[in-house]
Amino acid sequence: MVVNTIAELKRLLKKARSENQSIGLVPTMGFLHDGHLSLIEQATRENDIVVVSIFVNPTQFGPNEDFETYPRDMETDTKLATEAGADIIFNPSVSEMYPDESSTWVTTDGHITSILCGVSRPIHFKGVTTVVNMLFNIVAPDRAYFGQKDAQQAAVLTKMVRDLHIDVQLIICPIVREADGLALSSRNTYLNNEERKQATILSQSLQLALDEYNNGETATDKLVKIVKDNIMSMPLANIEYVNIYAYPSLTEINPIEDTSIVAVAARFGKTRLIDNVILKKRK
Amino acid sequence: MVVNTIAELKRLLKKARSENQSIGLVPTMGFLHDGHLSLIEQATRENDIVVVSIFVNPTQFGPNEDFETYPRDMETDTKLATEAGADIIFNPSVSEMYPDESSTWVTTDGHITSILCGVSRPIHFKGVTTVVNMLFNIVAPDRAYFGQKDAQQAAVLTKMVRDLHIDVQLIICPIVREADGLALSSRNTYLNNEERKQATILSQSLQLALDEYNNGETATDKLVKIVKDNIMSMPLANIEYVNIYAYPSLTEINPIEDTSIVAVAARFGKTRLIDNVILKKRK
Repeated sequence: MVVNTIAELKRLLKKARSENQSIGLVPTMGFLHDGHLSLIEQATRENDIVVVSIFVNPTQFGPNEDFETYPRDMETDTKLATEAGADIIFNPSVSEMYPDESSTWVTTDGHITSILCGVSRPIHFKGVTTVVNMLFNIVAPDRAYFGQKDAQQAAVLTKMVRDLHIDVQLIICPIVREADGLALSSRNTYLNNEERKQATILSQSLQLALDEYNNGETATDKLVKIVKDNIMSMPLANIEYVNIYAYPSLTEINPIEDTSIVAVAARFGKTRLIDNVILKKRK
Repeated sequence: MVVNTIAELKRLLKKARSENQSIGLVPTMGFLHDGHLSLIEQATRENDIVVVSIFVNPTQFGPNEDFETYPRDMETDTKLATEAGADIIFNPSVSEMYPDESSTWVTTDGHITSILCGVSRPIHFKGVTTVVNMLFNIVAPDRAYFGQKDAQQAAVLTKMVRDLHIDVQLIICPIVREADGLALSSRNTYLNNEERKQATILSQSLQLALDEYNNGETATDKLVKIVKDNIMSMPLANIEYVNIYAYPSLTEINPIEDTSIVAVAARFGKTRLIDNVILKKRK
């Protein structure tokens, strides 16, 4: 069932809540792939009602980014989300979410939003925290599901939920990959054949870092160098960053003594891809 | 019943909500007067459970303002709030509301927060919108009660609730006044005898403007001049602003053709007082 207005969605959920049904929310920007579907399936197992939001949120795109061209396919999305177990697909317009003269923002300030993707996308997380806050206010979910692929987003939202005392359980689900290792992303559709082939270097390089860490290497600079050198072996790859931080705090760490993340962003042609791997704290 | 932790409050309210009881919230900074008590009494009439929060919120005070000296009296407040019908008095510590490295803010940008009190108190409304958002997340009230005395606050919170799609009904209650017209405020306790006597000029001047409006005057500059001239007749009064805006949008209006507000801020000695009157749209 597709719902386009906030009023209608609130009306439906009010009824569910008065019957003490649990509500799971899966926020997406649509063009659903198996990564999204794994979130919907998990939400379906853990909640009575599952709401999948499909909203390409303009405020998380910078002025020169791909808001206009971001892939959209509501017909296929509706079919896929429903098959995966979604009860309600919430697909609001931009003016429904941001009515005239909307000017209220939720921002998580500091290191956590200024590093990694925050460097090249300075307004991105402000858009994310604002729209996710809106969705939480509208849906009041018991649980909300996000992918580990957007690791910084997951860390920022974890902090936002803690800081604002939001009554929701965030559930961060594993990255889903193609057979050759490429992390699923709606933006993979932008890649041409050669770019698509070379993009596998990201997951391969992260796997190398994980292997080295498991073999005893804990110096962040050495692990970062391994990943960078490896990615640069591909002529079409342009590295934006390779960094290691404690996770999910995203604080500096060196040597690695706690659970941490190796996070990478790189361009292949015009397409910007991100990927990451968690290095678990040693027992 | 006094509750100091967010976890305990959420536990109590979860039970109430599962029984479909309605929840009213009255956010205060304590040192309760009859204005606060009128909010609590109305909340008690309209809800099954009433939560009164008492929290002197540091983030809405500027560096040279009265956070440290703001009057506090939890013992009397607990007695008064309970007598007025409060079921739960929520009195968290600063570190409970703003845990270590808290850095998430809710801001309503634009004209509405930059005029009136926003001029001399540039960070004030950022603190208000953030803490009220936290309280809404913690309590998830059906209704929240605020006084019309803080008219700009009421307007800003109305916009915040609209912009972020928060599922709460804001109820703005009339100003409660002393017999001589002075609007009740916890800060009135700062006034010495002579200041207290002269401070009645605020409500008298606003009444004059209301009378002139009711007699047909709709030019904002003329009404503003009447109020200013009148206040300046008191030697201890220092006017910070006298303005007329459409209400609750707080947009410019001249002549007055819609419901509007005459808002005033003035100092008597070191004590800053605010007051206002609504000019209702003519039928």
